[in-house]
Amino acid sequence: MTSSIERGTSSDHILGFARSVMSHRFGQGRHQPHEVFQTSTMISLIEGLYDGNVTYKTVMRHGDFGVGTFNALDGEMVALDGGFFHLRSDGSVRSVSGDELTPFAAVTRFKPNIDHTEERSLAREQCEEVIHRLAPSDNLFYALRIDGHFRSIRTRTVSKQSKPYPRLVDAAASAPVVTLTDTTGTIVGFHTPEYAQGIAVAGYHLHFLSADHQSGGHVFDFTVDSPRIRIDSEGELHLSLQATDEFLSTRFAGDVSAEISRAETSGPPSH
Amino acid sequence: MTSSIERGTSSDHILGFARSVMSHRFGQGRHQPHEVFQTSTMISLIEGLYDGNVTYKTVMRHGDFGVGTFNALDGEMVALDGGFFHLRSDGSVRSVSGDELTPFAAVTRFKPNIDHTEERSLAREQCEEVIHRLAPSDNLFYALRIDGHFRSIRTRTVSKQSKPYPRLVDAAASAPVVTLTDTTGTIVGFHTPEYAQGIAVAGYHLHFLSADHQSGGHVFDFTVDSPRIRIDSEGELHLSLQATDEFLSTRFAGDVSAEISRAETSGPPSH
Repeated sequence: MTSSIERGTSSDHILGFARSVMSHRFGQGRHQPHEVFQTSTMISLIEGLYDGNVTYKTVMRHGDFGVGTFNALDGEMVALDGGFFHLRSDGSVRSVSGDELTPFAAVTRFKPNIDHTEERSLAREQCEEVIHRLAPSDNLFYALRIDGHFRSIRTRTVSKQSKPYPRLVDAAASAPVVTLTDTTGTIVGFHTPEYAQGIAVAGYHLHFLSADHQSGGHVFDFTVDSPRIRIDSEGELHLSLQATDEFLSTRFAGDVSAEISRAETSGPPSH
Repeated sequence: MTSSIERGTSSDHILGFARSVMSHRFGQGRHQPHEVFQTSTMISLIEGLYDGNVTYKTVMRHGDFGVGTFNALDGEMVALDGGFFHLRSDGSVRSVSGDELTPFAAVTRFKPNIDHTEERSLAREQCEEVIHRLAPSDNLFYALRIDGHFRSIRTRTVSKQSKPYPRLVDAAASAPVVTLTDTTGTIVGFHTPEYAQGIAVAGYHLHFLSADHQSGGHVFDFTVDSPRIRIDSEGELHLSLQATDEFLSTRFAGDVSAEISRAETSGPPSH
């Protein structure tokens, strides 16, 4: 097991490291590249607001690593190594065009401050425990990258919706779920603190792209061998609202935690 | 009654106006001046994290209009017309020095898109109804400025705390509450959508400064004659976390809405 930083072995070191990262980012008064940029909110998706007014050209100006979707909920987006990929429910993968519109995307310029390889096989829950130990705090936003050989990974890719749009929990329930086995690839995503639930997905929001760029989707669960886990702690959130008519006039429900969990983090039971 | 825009009389016009403001702000890919910049979160204050690591010099780079507090919770901040004012619980008011530290502040560069004078006397609740009618949507952040002659205004100014720090609800309960009568001045503050409760104060978070700069504080209730109400709709939130040891290690409570309401919006009963 190799690790540049581990929570538990030297918490002072970690806190000191996190502080130095943060003060470096905060202290200079210059443009802060280590921010999460997010267009629109998760509650907008939850309410079925699937038509955004922001192009991927705009999103790309704010980052080259992240997750998202497309207008009419037409698939999942993964941004990785400078490429933006559009995954559709028919299994197709192609490059995102800058003039495609999105109702929700979150990106950053990924510069990990933690780089750790865990030399064993991990289920998702175990992997999250490792990440929890590595990351300086659950109270920060952070971008995550997990590379490895996946014994299995269960993903879903949402399908293009027709108006009147259903709520996300219903649209997601009918999305095809695919289990890939023995595939090498990368998980891309974000950790969001509990206090930002609704703005984003509290906990982990993860998308997968295979190394051959032929498959992937929104991640439910997985088993991965010897994952390389990289974490970029983010001290800045740039939330950019989309003032569509629908957004301005929607009366949002109060607590949507359960609905977010059903739509985004649990998925149908494994079988 | 004069009004540049009114919700209810021409909602299409308002939505169109809001959209044009937003698309102007969003569409150009340049730096967006109309953002709310906020350092740290309201839940940090709620938990008694009163020692920040950000100077007002940094805050001033992001805006010249807003509200905040100081390390050790030593008073209320009002930023208005380019000045930053430090209001202490002893009733003193002085200019903020750039090297003062803050555990929480929210500022913007105030450029109102709505400017309305209501030619009658309004209690706080009535004033909020007028603002609700004027503003394009409760789902946006917006900065607020209310100028007028206040028949009465009830404010509190939090007092410098000693360690171990109490929670905000307890610190606020012991803060002196002052009722000013027949005073001319300005309310400065923000509206935060419900979905950002905890990050900021959902609803209205308002501070007051008298025209002679001699008094003010965190606003509970008021009656104002012929208020001039200006609103700056904000499509961007720049949330900048403070990675202090306390912030990184705090386990935040789940739903703090009731505590935020008690500490920030209700105050002790009028008498």
